[in-house]
Amino acid sequence: MGQDGQDNGKYRIESWGGSRYILQQLLYSCYGKHGLIREKYRKANHEPKEAVMDFKDVMYQRRAVNFFDPEQPVSDALLRELVETAANTPSSFNLQPWNLIVLREPESKGRLEKLAWNQSKVSEAPVVLIVLADRSGWKEGHSVVERNFQEMVRSGSMTVEQREWFLGACGSLYGASEERQQAFACKNTGFFAMSLMLSAKNMGLDTHPMDGFDMEGVRKAFQIPDNFWIPLLLAVGYFRKDKELLPPKWRKSYTDIVVSF
Amino acid sequence: MGQDGQDNGKYRIESWGGSRYILQQLLYSCYGKHGLIREKYRKANHEPKEAVMDFKDVMYQRRAVNFFDPEQPVSDALLRELVETAANTPSSFNLQPWNLIVLREPESKGRLEKLAWNQSKVSEAPVVLIVLADRSGWKEGHSVVERNFQEMVRSGSMTVEQREWFLGACGSLYGASEERQQAFACKNTGFFAMSLMLSAKNMGLDTHPMDGFDMEGVRKAFQIPDNFWIPLLLAVGYFRKDKELLPPKWRKSYTDIVVSF
Repeated sequence: MGQDGQDNGKYRIESWGGSRYILQQLLYSCYGKHGLIREKYRKANHEPKEAVMDFKDVMYQRRAVNFFDPEQPVSDALLRELVETAANTPSSFNLQPWNLIVLREPESKGRLEKLAWNQSKVSEAPVVLIVLADRSGWKEGHSVVERNFQEMVRSGSMTVEQREWFLGACGSLYGASEERQQAFACKNTGFFAMSLMLSAKNMGLDTHPMDGFDMEGVRKAFQIPDNFWIPLLLAVGYFRKDKELLPPKWRKSYTDIVVSF
Repeated sequence: MGQDGQDNGKYRIESWGGSRYILQQLLYSCYGKHGLIREKYRKANHEPKEAVMDFKDVMYQRRAVNFFDPEQPVSDALLRELVETAANTPSSFNLQPWNLIVLREPESKGRLEKLAWNQSKVSEAPVVLIVLADRSGWKEGHSVVERNFQEMVRSGSMTVEQREWFLGACGSLYGASEERQQAFACKNTGFFAMSLMLSAKNMGLDTHPMDGFDMEGVRKAFQIPDNFWIPLLLAVGYFRKDKELLPPKWRKSYTDIVVSF
């Protein structure tokens, strides 16, 4: 919390008087992390807006926006920072079975738009990610599986002798059936996609996760191999300020979520 | 960023002199959001630690911890706050196909531990969540599907006349095959589980997502209906401070993640 008046009110500690609080806020607004002077310095040096939001602000301010400003680009540096932040996502045995195809060109976004129920946000967003879930990302010989094993041995969290155990566990948990392969790929890529959406919000970017597309059509158009499921498309950009956001959607409560049988 | 010395260094703006910065930091450390006096007040009133971490700190400080302090409980209020924060997660057509079984009692955690490769964190963690992905959460008549539709109509984002279209879209995207049902349930529950892990870190809690368990055994032991897949167990508690964390694991780089075909 903290950047909007409502929440700051909580910290105006009632019985201690407000003057020191006001002085502190004033100094903070000039020099602090989000400070005016600091921001001016960053702008003058063409640095992107610093990613310093409080976690809960990110959770509550992230929205699936329907309108992107086609005039406001997302730089390669910003996209890289976004992906590298989200890359810290945990995964089953650290197998990270996710990949992205990055679309920026009007031609490729236009082809995707036609396969995505003609949703105009696909071409309006400066970046659209085709998010891929690798159903083969648990197999012996897969480059990430092998690299992951090497790195675990190097860091001492596994020994060379545990290779058979490691491959056996991956095979039985993630490869034993088609439904296990699908669950492994989609769950972990779900972790990653959530991190992408939240990390984007933290960087001042907006996103829209999309399910409405012809998966086999997209597979064909972008020559995506069969080992990948395509759990979502993710539009990334800046909300178009002349549009209005819909009110936040209904969410299940604690008692809706927690069950027992 | 911002709570550790290393990052604060970035804001000690070189050419402007440090004295005002130091005064501001001093005042902030007493009265600010994370302030000492504020924290003392909260402790005296038995309020939980306020959740005010910066987003990137949460992303980088979240770790799958192997050792939980069995003496440090997680209150019902804290668990509820955790679940309600994560409940803000987006989902396919807002269908939120996730549920949780909450285990706290030694007896039920002990039963789960035996089915989860005897991992002692299952009984050591004060709370263990059995995370459920509802493969039927797209069907006409399902309570969440119906409630969601009513709420969309109420908020004006859909009309009553769009009911057939809505149910048809859900059916074709999420219900048309077993692999689509599995992808729908596991991807969205992956979003939710990621939000849970990050929200927990923000509240000072630690987590460990676990795949190593006998799914059919857990289903039977906890009478979980067949419409649910069990994508993970999630241990929740406080890291046991006399243990050491392993170094962060290797992660794929931007160029490992971004592909084209």
